[in-house]
Amino acid sequence: MLDFSATYTDQYQLAMAQVYFQNGQKDTTAVFDYFFRKLPFGNGYAIFAGLEDLLEVLENLRFNEKDLNYLKNQGFPRDFIEYLSQFRFRGNIYSSREGDVVFPTRPVLQVEATMIEAQLIETILLNLLNFQTLIATKASRIRLVAGERGLLDFGLRRAQGPGGYYASRAAVIGGFNGTSNVIAGRDFNIPVAGTMAHSFVQSYEDELTSFRAFAKGRPKDCVLLVDSYDTLKSGIPNAIIVGKEMEIAGEKLAGIRLDSGDLAYLAKQSRKMLNEAGLTYVKIAVSNQLDEFVIKSLLEQNAPIDTFGVGTNLVTGNPDGALDGVYKLVESGGKPRLKISESLSKITIPHKKQVYRLSNSKGELIGADAITLREETRIDSMHDPKESLKSLNVSEYSLEALLQPVMLNGKRMEASRGLTQIAEYSKHRLASLPAEYKRFYNPHIYKVGISTNLKKEREDLLNKYRK
Amino acid sequence: MLDFSATYTDQYQLAMAQVYFQNGQKDTTAVFDYFFRKLPFGNGYAIFAGLEDLLEVLENLRFNEKDLNYLKNQGFPRDFIEYLSQFRFRGNIYSSREGDVVFPTRPVLQVEATMIEAQLIETILLNLLNFQTLIATKASRIRLVAGERGLLDFGLRRAQGPGGYYASRAAVIGGFNGTSNVIAGRDFNIPVAGTMAHSFVQSYEDELTSFRAFAKGRPKDCVLLVDSYDTLKSGIPNAIIVGKEMEIAGEKLAGIRLDSGDLAYLAKQSRKMLNEAGLTYVKIAVSNQLDEFVIKSLLEQNAPIDTFGVGTNLVTGNPDGALDGVYKLVESGGKPRLKISESLSKITIPHKKQVYRLSNSKGELIGADAITLREETRIDSMHDPKESLKSLNVSEYSLEALLQPVMLNGKRMEASRGLTQIAEYSKHRLASLPAEYKRFYNPHIYKVGISTNLKKEREDLLNKYRK
Repeated sequence: MLDFSATYTDQYQLAMAQVYFQNGQKDTTAVFDYFFRKLPFGNGYAIFAGLEDLLEVLENLRFNEKDLNYLKNQGFPRDFIEYLSQFRFRGNIYSSREGDVVFPTRPVLQVEATMIEAQLIETILLNLLNFQTLIATKASRIRLVAGERGLLDFGLRRAQGPGGYYASRAAVIGGFNGTSNVIAGRDFNIPVAGTMAHSFVQSYEDELTSFRAFAKGRPKDCVLLVDSYDTLKSGIPNAIIVGKEMEIAGEKLAGIRLDSGDLAYLAKQSRKMLNEAGLTYVKIAVSNQLDEFVIKSLLEQNAPIDTFGVGTNLVTGNPDGALDGVYKLVESGGKPRLKISESLSKITIPHKKQVYRLSNSKGELIGADAITLREETRIDSMHDPKESLKSLNVSEYSLEALLQPVMLNGKRMEASRGLTQIAEYSKHRLASLPAEYKRFYNPHIYKVGISTNLKKEREDLLNKYRK
Repeated sequence: MLDFSATYTDQYQLAMAQVYFQNGQKDTTAVFDYFFRKLPFGNGYAIFAGLEDLLEVLENLRFNEKDLNYLKNQGFPRDFIEYLSQFRFRGNIYSSREGDVVFPTRPVLQVEATMIEAQLIETILLNLLNFQTLIATKASRIRLVAGERGLLDFGLRRAQGPGGYYASRAAVIGGFNGTSNVIAGRDFNIPVAGTMAHSFVQSYEDELTSFRAFAKGRPKDCVLLVDSYDTLKSGIPNAIIVGKEMEIAGEKLAGIRLDSGDLAYLAKQSRKMLNEAGLTYVKIAVSNQLDEFVIKSLLEQNAPIDTFGVGTNLVTGNPDGALDGVYKLVESGGKPRLKISESLSKITIPHKKQVYRLSNSKGELIGADAITLREETRIDSMHDPKESLKSLNVSEYSLEALLQPVMLNGKRMEASRGLTQIAEYSKHRLASLPAEYKRFYNPHIYKVGISTNLKKEREDLLNKYRK
């Protein structure tokens, strides 16, 4: 039904590729930067996600028979179709590590390939990285307000079609503990979790019978949905009956779930009733249109909630439906290239580059990334790429090179990283980021600058173009 | 990488299915309604989309080996796994026709199946229908402001991962003419279109050389991107040179594209310059963060634009990332079921049902759908399902039955409808909807009511539940 064949691209990529091919430019090399301009959700950082999926796609990217027939019928010339039938991505990719905290303006990833290869992968690269980075960032915001409490992704039913598959993965990178999404659980080794639906309770003649049936069938992970009739008058009392019956059978009721009403009030009352019945170990889960703002409010009210199930607002990245990541040519045929614009903030940064993260002598991050020419290994100053008079002396700081080769000549440099490993790395990187960049409202702005050499190269090129 | 095996579901569907299975309820029948509560975008109607994809998925839905092994490792019991290995969807589906205008509260589709079947398909049904209906509705809003001008979907790069595949399809149902998305074009027979990227222009030493190369390679659909350096001083003059050269070669420049700056001003100036050069036939396309509001504004300024390329805001349904469609149990084991709630507006409507669209003696729609028991064929009054005192005499109107069987015993009733046919049907249905429901701001509210018999059944059941 859906595959990632090489026609998962925009038509103009093929049109341009055809022209390069016919013009004898099929081996012309190019370098493209992937970066974004604006952080989503008013957040102070983004969590980079989607890289493993991209690398897997690129290693296997082909035009299959169906594609080639289709393109032939679309009027692409025979010799170009023949070329496409042999198409493989054989380029190099330098990238930030998946799960790292990343910031606007600086390249998150750089592609070196032939012009044709680089263009043909643009759309799928943007499609996969923009979306997963968006959702991992949303998940991370939610994780920061939820503390150590459980966070489950319940979003598949409201996700943007099969986008939900990757949303569940990205949520884990951003700090979620599990998902209701079984196919994502299967493929990404994410813990899957769930409770019961109202329909289950409704399908029995009464609530207690439905609870008993569920407890009998699923004694090890029995979470009862208590709001079908009346949470405090029926749901919780029936859950207590079943919890007590489970104790007699040597089992333990795992939890109850609240899905409507005033969650803070109901959680408090439910906790009290469960505790009074000796069921102090029964966890309270809540769901219903949650997001980081609602969770923050619930916790500020000291609602005794153990687990949050987050759906629509997580998996669609509400209210920011897309990360504005772009893919810009910075070198072709061995020459640096610039995209000029009326607005200084939209002028690209040419050349093969490196990005360094700066830390002080104690090993603490100072809140700055510096973009340099790739061969630079030390820098004295960094300059604001948008306001040419702003600069910072950085000669005293230690540099961590962020862009590392992850694919050379179309082959991955190392085996696929598992999701748990990526999520752990992300947690560690986020922990190292000073608190002011993680502030919920109005976070401090992380500095991104360019080296003196790169600034000069860019200005020289800009002057040449303007002439 | 991604498939629609039966694990494309939520974990609780499997947990509930296991309990039904072990409890001897595997053949218990159920009826579920699919409906939504709120129209997106402040629009007066929604365009129903995604049905064909759903039916295709349901006909082929299986737990494959990978799924079964995974579920075994997840601790599901052996006999249940064996049952799942034979699982097929063998239920019935009654549905509105894909492309129709649909409204809140009334069932858009009804599923009759075993409880297990009906639960296992819930997630994928919601996932496919909610998203495509959202995007088709967004596309329809854009179509209504754009009149007969060309509308192209350029969104794949900013789509929510593979959600973009279905977004391109849904956009056509809502009235778009084509897409840049090649794989969607291939699979859904959508006209694909595109121009060139800035990177193409940048990769040549000068703009004119890049335009000439493109015109040579793509003489039949050559649309030149004119804003890489300076639209009016460089882009348009160079496009005119190439347009004139193409005339000499017996070809025609198809168009130019503006992707930045003041689109209204630049379109007017570009049109003037092209016309003065005798290139009156060259079309003007624009792109850059368009949505229905920007397009409306451009046209109110009489910007001479022929084609709009719409990306992010279309394919992500900005600012509404999800349709709130739900799937509620209305009958099980042959008995009507009700989901009660504190809020009358959230109480479900029990029973197998029909939905009639009302028209007057001249065949004009009166702006009302009536929900009835399935066997009712005539109705006297319809009643507001939320405000029990509001009712309307409808005895004089003609009734069109909207819910038709599209799948019986797991088999489709007719061959797949092509996308062009669905889009044509949608256009026809939208044309029949009175103008006040299509108003851009504050559209009139379409009435949805329930029949007297259904009202009585619902009230009786509610009283029984409340006792």
